[in-house]
Amino acid sequence: MSNSASSPPDGAAVSRHRHRVAFFETDAMGVVHHSNYIRHLELARICWLDEHDQPYRVYAEQGLHYATTHLEIDYRRSTGFDDVIEIAAWLDWVRGASMCIDYELTCEGTCVATASSLHAMVNREGRVRRIPKERAENLKGLALRPGPKVL
Amino acid sequence: MSNSASSPPDGAAVSRHRHRVAFFETDAMGVVHHSNYIRHLELARICWLDEHDQPYRVYAEQGLHYATTHLEIDYRRSTGFDDVIEIAAWLDWVRGASMCIDYELTCEGTCVATASSLHAMVNREGRVRRIPKERAENLKGLALRPGPKVL
Amino acid sequence: MSNSASSPPDGAAVSRHRHRVAFFETDAMGVVHHSNYIRHLELARICWLDEHDQPYRVYAEQGLHYATTHLEIDYRRSTGFDDVIEIAAWLDWVRGASMCIDYELTCEGTCVATASSLHAMVNREGRVRRIPKERAENLKGLALRPGPKVL
Amino acid sequence: MSNSASSPPDGAAVSRHRHRVAFFETDAMGVVHHSNYIRHLELARICWLDEHDQPYRVYAEQGLHYATTHLEIDYRRSTGFDDVIEIAAWLDWVRGASMCIDYELTCEGTCVATASSLHAMVNREGRVRRIPKERAENLKGLALRPGPKVL
Repeated sequence: MSNSASSPPDGAAVSRHRHRVAFFETDAMGVVHHSNYIRHLELARICWLDEHDQPYRVYAEQGLHYATTHLEIDYRRSTGFDDVIEIAAWLDWVRGASMCIDYELTCEGTCVATASSLHAMVNREGRVRRIPKERAENLKGLALRPGPKVL
Repeated sequence: MSNSASSPPDGAAVSRHRHRVAFFETDAMGVVHHSNYIRHLELARICWLDEHDQPYRVYAEQGLHYATTHLEIDYRRSTGFDDVIEIAAWLDWVRGASMCIDYELTCEGTCVATASSLHAMVNREGRVRRIPKERAENLKGLALRPGPKVL
Repeated sequence: MSNSASSPPDGAAVSRHRHRVAFFETDAMGVVHHSNYIRHLELARICWLDEHDQPYRVYAEQGLHYATTHLEIDYRRSTGFDDVIEIAAWLDWVRGASMCIDYELTCEGTCVATASSLHAMVNREGRVRRIPKERAENLKGLALRPGPKVL
Repeated sequence: MSNSASSPPDGAAVSRHRHRVAFFETDAMGVVHHSNYIRHLELARICWLDEHDQPYRVYAEQGLHYATTHLEIDYRRSTGFDDVIEIAAWLDWVRGASMCIDYELTCEGTCVATASSLHAMVNREGRVRRIPKERAENLKGLALRPGPKVL
């Protein structure tokens, strides 16, 4: 992933998912519990695939999943009940069986978190599989940069 | 389910699961979010099956699940971070393909909630199946009362 | 709550919240875990207050909450990843410090669950408080029927 | 955090929290949804504070919280329903208002994930505060190495 996964870089294929914070996402500090942002990233990935690749539902029907193999997230500001968080997601790179997605979460225009996730394509048994050729070609055309030589 | 699903009735086969409240279970009211109690009931059911029937894992490996078909819960007092909730569970009744479990949740000896759940046995495709004969016989011996004539 | 909390009755003030099922809401049975529907009810209540009363955020800023005191739900059909669940919510009755909301959850026009929840107005310390006069009057005008004599 | 946050290094003050995977933590891939591991880290931190510092409940009663400011996690193997995950946690470093905790998650002796989290001490309003002197001194004595010069 990039060292400074900040605002979507020029040329990135970006999707923006808007999420209104539910009360059940808050914790006793009065803010959104940090574990929920990990779920917001998933919502944004699903949205990104919808808009730029194919619905995740189609992958799932084919018995394929993008298992999460690495996550990192910087929390910059807290958010609270009823805030609307916009999660921008874009494809950083893709390789034969893996990809990296970067994210910026904003609330009323202020960055509240940045994140990056790695995914490996797996089948129903959890074994790593190459991304289907057609999908891989499409994704390569959308990636911001070539994938690392070694994962 | 019984009209007053309160403390375990005499003769009930009871399991008691102790759950220490995690911070991520609290909400911005400073107490455990009510949706988490539904998950506590599941923890107690799993524990009940362990102690009185067979591990749920074994059912799952056989492709069988006790799908939840009805739930009701009375919330009496709030609980907070780090409280230890004891969830008592017992089998109210069992029929060919369904059963009813009752619960009492206490915290430091005070009742904080009572609940009741109905479950139907289903296979991997979600179709209703009879409870396997051996399991059904065991369960009948543990039920507090005969099941209702009509579910 | 009504005995047959089914489709919104004639004359009910209904809100309809559409929720697209996230992958993280599914479980190893391949369907939405039953505990998540309790959260869907909350999303629909928030939506109902937005459309018919005042945003829940305003209540919260005043230090007031509608604590959930009772829940019941009938699960009729399972739903899965990416399904869109429409949760219809309406006010069954309201009393001085409590109210009852009924729900019907549908997916592609088919009822997947019905539910009912009771709520007590509480302050920041969790003590029961009367619903503010203006709110109570508004709510009474929207309730389907008078509240029960005894809660 | 350390570059290879693997097994607890020699000299680390380690706590080990055992967590039995609940059914509601699984997803439609049949394994524990990756977002839940973030919650397991929290369980292990709470346990670490209990055993090596002071109960988090005491911090909370003083209006102090260790807000999570950064998380990274490597997922190495999936886990499933009823697996027992052991989460080892140890303090990597501590500074005036922040600390870093490292984790190794194992299941039946096999590493399933490693992780690292940064935390800033904040008050009820979410403002950064120095860790109380007595706590800071205790923590410094337990840290594996001096904190970075610049956070």
